[in-house]
Amino acid sequence: MGMSTFKNIFLSAFNYKTEKYDIVENNKVGILYRVTQLCLIGYLIGWVFITNKGYQAVEESVQSSVITKVKGVVSINSSDTGFSLWGPEDYVVPAHGEANFFIATNVKEIPNQTLDNCAESDTVPDGRCRDDADCPRGEAVRAGHGIKTGRCLKGTCEIHGWCPDEGSQKSHVLGKAENFTIYIKNFIRFPRFSFSKSNIRETQDKNYLPTCNYDESVHPYCPIFRLGDIIRKTGHRFQDIAQAGAAIGILINWDCNLDLGSSQCHPRYSFIRLDLNTNVNSITTFNFRYARYYKNATGHDYRTLFKVYGIRFHVMVHGKAGKFSIIPTLVNIGSGLALLGVVSMKS
Amino acid sequence: MGMSTFKNIFLSAFNYKTEKYDIVENNKVGILYRVTQLCLIGYLIGWVFITNKGYQAVEESVQSSVITKVKGVVSINSSDTGFSLWGPEDYVVPAHGEANFFIATNVKEIPNQTLDNCAESDTVPDGRCRDDADCPRGEAVRAGHGIKTGRCLKGTCEIHGWCPDEGSQKSHVLGKAENFTIYIKNFIRFPRFSFSKSNIRETQDKNYLPTCNYDESVHPYCPIFRLGDIIRKTGHRFQDIAQAGAAIGILINWDCNLDLGSSQCHPRYSFIRLDLNTNVNSITTFNFRYARYYKNATGHDYRTLFKVYGIRFHVMVHGKAGKFSIIPTLVNIGSGLALLGVVSMKS
Amino acid sequence: MGMSTFKNIFLSAFNYKTEKYDIVENNKVGILYRVTQLCLIGYLIGWVFITNKGYQAVEESVQSSVITKVKGVVSINSSDTGFSLWGPEDYVVPAHGEANFFIATNVKEIPNQTLDNCAESDTVPDGRCRDDADCPRGEAVRAGHGIKTGRCLKGTCEIHGWCPDEGSQKSHVLGKAENFTIYIKNFIRFPRFSFSKSNIRETQDKNYLPTCNYDESVHPYCPIFRLGDIIRKTGHRFQDIAQAGAAIGILINWDCNLDLGSSQCHPRYSFIRLDLNTNVNSITTFNFRYARYYKNATGHDYRTLFKVYGIRFHVMVHGKAGKFSIIPTLVNIGSGLALLGVVSMKS
Repeated sequence: MGMSTFKNIFLSAFNYKTEKYDIVENNKVGILYRVTQLCLIGYLIGWVFITNKGYQAVEESVQSSVITKVKGVVSINSSDTGFSLWGPEDYVVPAHGEANFFIATNVKEIPNQTLDNCAESDTVPDGRCRDDADCPRGEAVRAGHGIKTGRCLKGTCEIHGWCPDEGSQKSHVLGKAENFTIYIKNFIRFPRFSFSKSNIRETQDKNYLPTCNYDESVHPYCPIFRLGDIIRKTGHRFQDIAQAGAAIGILINWDCNLDLGSSQCHPRYSFIRLDLNTNVNSITTFNFRYARYYKNATGHDYRTLFKVYGIRFHVMVHGKAGKFSIIPTLVNIGSGLALLGVVSMKS
Repeated sequence: MGMSTFKNIFLSAFNYKTEKYDIVENNKVGILYRVTQLCLIGYLIGWVFITNKGYQAVEESVQSSVITKVKGVVSINSSDTGFSLWGPEDYVVPAHGEANFFIATNVKEIPNQTLDNCAESDTVPDGRCRDDADCPRGEAVRAGHGIKTGRCLKGTCEIHGWCPDEGSQKSHVLGKAENFTIYIKNFIRFPRFSFSKSNIRETQDKNYLPTCNYDESVHPYCPIFRLGDIIRKTGHRFQDIAQAGAAIGILINWDCNLDLGSSQCHPRYSFIRLDLNTNVNSITTFNFRYARYYKNATGHDYRTLFKVYGIRFHVMVHGKAGKFSIIPTLVNIGSGLALLGVVSMKS
Repeated sequence: MGMSTFKNIFLSAFNYKTEKYDIVENNKVGILYRVTQLCLIGYLIGWVFITNKGYQAVEESVQSSVITKVKGVVSINSSDTGFSLWGPEDYVVPAHGEANFFIATNVKEIPNQTLDNCAESDTVPDGRCRDDADCPRGEAVRAGHGIKTGRCLKGTCEIHGWCPDEGSQKSHVLGKAENFTIYIKNFIRFPRFSFSKSNIRETQDKNYLPTCNYDESVHPYCPIFRLGDIIRKTGHRFQDIAQAGAAIGILINWDCNLDLGSSQCHPRYSFIRLDLNTNVNSITTFNFRYARYYKNATGHDYRTLFKVYGIRFHVMVHGKAGKFSIIPTLVNIGSGLALLGVVSMKS
């Protein structure tokens, strides 16, 4: 029983089962059956494979590095503070070319502040008072600008802080800031495919970059953007938002089919205003304060405070790359065939 | 043979195969078979579809833009450097409202530094010496503060640099910094679904935003956070970490089921301390130095150096949105049915 | 008919169908059939499960927080501007330890600028002129440095701005900057698995961190990097890029199999130059300007302008964590078995 049984078991491993079928000739059921099959095959080929590129492995997390450079200059001629000139070293914050940056479009200069006693701004809720008891000495004003001295002056607490406060100064809109240019360098990398590219067009023309201006139809790959154009493309006017500021998103979208080769992988720019959901009643201005500190001849500090409103730019890079890969192809074929199989079983 | 054969082939395309089955009445195997089927259907409906929303396309890469604004003021009364006032323009770095920002909670001021010769700090390994030969003239101290002059002074090299060095000054903890408020504006966008929203509650109440304070149960959608509250929610006390600083993550989580509509898409805030894994023996303080430069009457530079310890905040936005889509639905049904089919074949 | 029919239907739910098979003994077809099956099982186990870890849920969006600290000092001895010392508070921008930071390696100092009239730089296209009509009074030079006064001086417009302009000054390469050290603290978190870790090695040796230097083979987990070493690892030489600057990516990759436990989850560092795709003819330098403002005894502003070229570092964290999960396991088994089923049906 030993050898021959073992041989039989071994050979039987190479048998295979085949099912018995009845061939049924029923045209109505048959047509329905074939149509369902065709729909499924169409769905598999058309939707899963052609439209959604089900045969590609997809990388959605792009590594991106953005460097920006703003150019342009604007002057203010104020009766209070005289002539002043604002260059990129002043109106771009931070100055060193980040992807998120702020361009001042409306500035208020409060020169010659010294540490002294004066009234708190009446826009600060905690700074309001009816009598001296509302202003306990030594306590800081919540969300305010100084330390309470214990006195109540005409409805607001007296504070010890940098005086005079900013209330009395006029602010100046930098209307010509719409002519500033923003040069955006973007380097991307899809780590899964070890693919990297930049948004700067490779050209032999030495004068292309210094003089071009981004335009969706004429210069779609020029990386230099006029500030006013960006605002206009978001559907707003520069002069409307220069006063209170805004947040603008510059979206760079890389949707790359790497099966077509590197040269077909282009950035597409779009521009959106980010702060529209903000409620009208809420604090919608985009401002911050900074100071320049000086010392006088006797070594005492004084400072110039700047309150700047402006446009906050966020360069956001969104990328997706697809490349043929065997795994998603098989998974998609597998589940597609499984659906086909289900149809066969049911019919 | 031409026409009729062709007709037969054409017609036979509408035939379909049906398998021959035996109906076996065996209750034990039958119950096992149905129970397995029910488990699989339960798994498919309950786990894949209801719990994991297998019928939705999911977007996990949210585009986010964060703007922060810190308010509050604190004073230092030092015997060395007199009265000084720290406002947001001084203690927030960078000043312009980034998602990653630093709030100084412990500051050391070294006024009136000039370029001169003095001893290197003894905490710098490369600055220690036994004799003059350890301090080669003209060489910079590795990770140090100046250029070696060639002399060894009581165990540390003499350097040419900004003197006096910071060692002798006391630092001042800004204890009242826990009352500072942080206003966080967050705008998000799910590009796949063209959906955008902000974290600022839409309300008609003009006084809501200026006066509200985030509280998990009472004001879960108020975007203004008290610094001390944030620290407390991470399980620490402000006074414990103000001295050496810390890194705090403010997580904003948008887990949005867009099938339910935009108004059901809310941010959820959570707060974690990020630097706990740091080894106790390693450098765990969070500090940096910056300087304010002045010129005296003769045009020579002097400066005030600030060494500030503080809390580094990282607003991190994590988002996920799901919306019904036909592809994942079919893939999940497909592989579910395939599993069912496998069970049928086996039984 | 009531009770017994109902009973029959109920019982028949526990019947099961079994197919009728013919066992065919055909070794050629049989061998092909088994080989195909073996290939598919091999693909399923080897590729899907072992190589691609198809049994794991994968989290690809890592939450990361990066803090950097640069140390080192360098001196400039210029015939124009005398001796000056550059410490981290001067050459690192921003100073407070961001993941994206700039280290100045080539600096030009233009001291004692005042608001005055002088010629525009001849590198600005819009500043060139043939006669006064090319320089309309009061108009800002596009991408320039001042406001046109209406006069044409030797080919370039006269401007009112900060004078003298930067053209005449020499720049100084900070050659010893290659000895600067960069300490990178990285805290990561995979929110899906509630897993967090830092890149700082847990050690009992108090002197490890202050003295170690990253080296791929000797100290792979030391988080302190010498600037020159980083550049060398990108395949370039520090002295070649110090003049014009560059953009360097420091990639930290966390590829964690959390089934193996936390201690097996390590960062891997790699270094790439990001700006290589830039065309040779385009603006490839990495520079920006900033100014220090002073007031003279009469209260007038003057300033020192710095134009700094340097290396822009981007610490980019890329993470992926996998952990056993039932869903992907079943989906992969399902579609694998579906493929197997298809083979069975065909044969």
